[in-house]
Amino acid sequence: MKAYLGTVSGNSYKLRILLSLLKVPHEVVIVDLKNKQHKSAEFLKINPRGEVPAIEDGGKVIWDSAACLVYIARKHGGEQWFPNDAADMAEVMQWIALAATEIQCGFQYARRGVLQGRWTLGSLEDGQAFGKVALDVMEKHLQKNDWLALGRPTIAEPACFPYIETAPEAKVALENYPAVVKWMERCKKLPGWAAR
Amino acid sequence: MKAYLGTVSGNSYKLRILLSLLKVPHEVVIVDLKNKQHKSAEFLKINPRGEVPAIEDGGKVIWDSAACLVYIARKHGGEQWFPNDAADMAEVMQWIALAATEIQCGFQYARRGVLQGRWTLGSLEDGQAFGKVALDVMEKHLQKNDWLALGRPTIAEPACFPYIETAPEAKVALENYPAVVKWMERCKKLPGWAAR
Repeated sequence: MKAYLGTVSGNSYKLRILLSLLKVPHEVVIVDLKNKQHKSAEFLKINPRGEVPAIEDGGKVIWDSAACLVYIARKHGGEQWFPNDAADMAEVMQWIALAATEIQCGFQYARRGVLQGRWTLGSLEDGQAFGKVALDVMEKHLQKNDWLALGRPTIAEPACFPYIETAPEAKVALENYPAVVKWMERCKKLPGWAAR
Repeated sequence: MKAYLGTVSGNSYKLRILLSLLKVPHEVVIVDLKNKQHKSAEFLKINPRGEVPAIEDGGKVIWDSAACLVYIARKHGGEQWFPNDAADMAEVMQWIALAATEIQCGFQYARRGVLQGRWTLGSLEDGQAFGKVALDVMEKHLQKNDWLALGRPTIAEPACFPYIETAPEAKVALENYPAVVKWMERCKKLPGWAAR
């Protein structure tokens, strides 16, 4: 399996976490985001959306971080990380969806604006407010639960973790979300959890 | 099964399409978005994120449109709509992810701004540009394929359709995307496809 990743990309970090947790042998191909390699004609053949991450496995190409997490979990993780049962799978999907909308379109874009000065999806305040919807939902849930779904680690953890961890780079302090902070500590203690 | 839906909500429309395609018996509970019932303490117990849709089935509550689609497809749709195989499932997931980010956070928020004057995630131009990334990816794919994933209708169709159909309400004309328009026509001809 080849994993096309960016070095500062939180979406790429999601894959690094799961690949490491599940000890999946893979080759990393670093895509040079700074020089816009992800928008090159060559890379657009791999991912027409022009984003990292993507994976290539046995001739099959999969783009999008959530789709990659699902693929890796179903192929290498058995029932633990993305289970087959309809209700259980949907419970995990709730958090994957939250990661794709409020967390990503809120905190990722706000962070990119702060770090790179590119504001393509609203202002800092827009992104902070959108991301905080997710933080509030997570805080409330994690006050009563150790994990996001099913009472155990699932792909909801690598899906939600990276842009929550970097929320302070979008100028959102996590100190008002103590249950989220404790959950992040639990994640980091999982055997094989990859550092940022 | 109870389905909590809003009347003008494209995310609710995604569920209406799949429930109708699969002829799933269900009770509709209309949530009064205009009077902010989705932000009421009572509804937040069902969906802490404060959005429609959500479903309740045998005591289990599921929020988020994609999670609801996955639940309905896995419980009532057999292998056709969200198949079990890792690579096939991931192929469908790519489009569900595109629906949650570029399509939703682009076109949905731009449309809401135009219709309601609420600009919570950037300007009209921000939303249009973000949504067009998805339209370009879809157009290119649909020039060579009848369906988004696996060469057949899957939950990628109800996931992507609603906010593409209403892109003109976000002031994005679809005439430059002829393959997308033809795909929409194919969707509407599927037996049981629900009208907007």
